[in-house]
Amino acid sequence: MRTFIVHGHPEPNSFNGALTRAAEQALAAAGHEVVISDLYAMGFNPVSDRRNFTTVLDAHYYRQQAEEANAAVHDGFAPDIQAEMDKLFWCDALILQFPLWWFGQPAILKGWVDRVFASGGRIYGGGKWYDRGVFSGKRAMCSVTIGGPPPIYSDRGLNGPIDSILFPINHGMLYFVGFTVIEPFLVHALARISDGERQLFLNRYRERVLSLAHAPTIVYPKLADFDATHVLKSRFLVHQDRAPR
Amino acid sequence: MRTFIVHGHPEPNSFNGALTRAAEQALAAAGHEVVISDLYAMGFNPVSDRRNFTTVLDAHYYRQQAEEANAAVHDGFAPDIQAEMDKLFWCDALILQFPLWWFGQPAILKGWVDRVFASGGRIYGGGKWYDRGVFSGKRAMCSVTIGGPPPIYSDRGLNGPIDSILFPINHGMLYFVGFTVIEPFLVHALARISDGERQLFLNRYRERVLSLAHAPTIVYPKLADFDATHVLKSRFLVHQDRAPR
Repeated sequence: MRTFIVHGHPEPNSFNGALTRAAEQALAAAGHEVVISDLYAMGFNPVSDRRNFTTVLDAHYYRQQAEEANAAVHDGFAPDIQAEMDKLFWCDALILQFPLWWFGQPAILKGWVDRVFASGGRIYGGGKWYDRGVFSGKRAMCSVTIGGPPPIYSDRGLNGPIDSILFPINHGMLYFVGFTVIEPFLVHALARISDGERQLFLNRYRERVLSLAHAPTIVYPKLADFDATHVLKSRFLVHQDRAPR
Repeated sequence: MRTFIVHGHPEPNSFNGALTRAAEQALAAAGHEVVISDLYAMGFNPVSDRRNFTTVLDAHYYRQQAEEANAAVHDGFAPDIQAEMDKLFWCDALILQFPLWWFGQPAILKGWVDRVFASGGRIYGGGKWYDRGVFSGKRAMCSVTIGGPPPIYSDRGLNGPIDSILFPINHGMLYFVGFTVIEPFLVHALARISDGERQLFLNRYRERVLSLAHAPTIVYPKLADFDATHVLKSRFLVHQDRAPR
C-alpha cells in the first residue's frame, strides 16, 4: 500500500503532526511506502492563477480551466503542481490531514486542491469524474481535528452535522476525482482531552492507517444512477445511499 | 448603507469582475459608500500562521487561537489583517464575491476568513457567536458563479444541493460571527449563457445590491433554541428552520 499524506497544519509539534508521524511510522514498520507533502513546511503557495503553468494559452484573459486543458496537452504544469500530481498517481491511498478551520480545510490545503486537481483530462474532465474518475480504484480519507465536542456537530447540533460539513470535501473533492472515500478519522475537542486519551487516539489512528485497504467507506450513488440532466433516477437512492440530507 | 465587497477572482475582466463593478456603480449612484477588497489585486496572502501577528505569545509552540487572543488584547494583528477587520466593523453589509471552486471558496478567500475572523473576542469568542455575534445587526451575502447548471446542484443532483454546499460558508462563517445571512445570488453555467442573459444577471444583481437592507434572508435557529450541550431543544425546529438536511 503506497500512502500519500497531504498535511496542512502550521505547528510541527501539534497533534496533527503527531497523527501524521504515527501514520508514517506505523505504515513504514509494516513495510508500506509513505510520501508526505507537509504544505506549511514546503512553503506551498495556495493561490491559484498563472503560477500553476509554464504554458500560456491566452495572455490577455485568464480562463483557468482553459489554461489547465492547454497545460494538460502541452505538459505545461508548474513543477510544484506536477510533483503533487505525480504523488497522486503514485499512491494507492491518499490522506488529507488537517484541523477544521471555519468549517473546511485551512486555505493552504484548499489551494492545494484548487491548483493540483486540474481539469482538461489530467485529473478530471472528458467524462472522467466520480466513479469513472481518474483515481477510481484508489482510496482516500480525511483525518481531521475539530475544536468542538461531538454534540455540537451532531444532526441537531449548533454547528451543523459533521457529515454535512465534510460533504464538500469527501464528495466534492475526493469522490469527484474518483477516489473511494473512507469514513473520516475525527478527533474532537482536543484541548479538553487528557494525554491518555491522546495516546488512545494515536493508537486508533495507527490501526486505521494499517487497515486503509478495508476500512469502511462512504456509499455514494454512481453516475449510472443519474439521468442525462445529472438528477438521480430513483428517489429511493436519496435515502438509502446518500450521506447528507 | 456601507457595503464591503470581498472579491476573490484572478481575472479582472471575468464575469465576477463585472458583477463587482456593477454593484459598485449601482451603490455609488444611489449615494451609498462602497469598499472593495480585491484579494488577487492586493496580492493577499491566505496562509494563516505567525504572519497574522505583530505580537508573539509563545515563540516555541504555535497555537493559533491563543496567539489570536493575545493579539486581541495587545493590538497585535498584522496591518493587512487589521485593515480587513476595520472594514468589517465599518460596513453595514458584507458581500463575498467568488467563483465556486471545488465546492467552496477559492483558497485566497478561504484564507481571508481563516486570518481575519480571529478569536479572542475581537471577531468572535467569549460567548459572542451566532445571533449574539460581534456583527449582529449587519447583513452578509454570497454572490457566486457556478460552472454547472441548476439541476446538477438540486436536492437530487449529482454534485449535491447548493444549499448544503454553501452551508459551511453561510452558516459556518457568516452567521457564526453574527451576520444576518441573505439568500445567495447565484449565476449558473456561465460558459453556456448568452450575452443577453449575462446583461440580465447584471441587472438583477444591481437590483439585489440596492435592496440588501430588505432582501430575503436564511432563517437559522438562535442560540436560545439550543440546550447547554449545544443541541436543539425542539425537534420541530430542525425541519422548520434549518436549511440543510
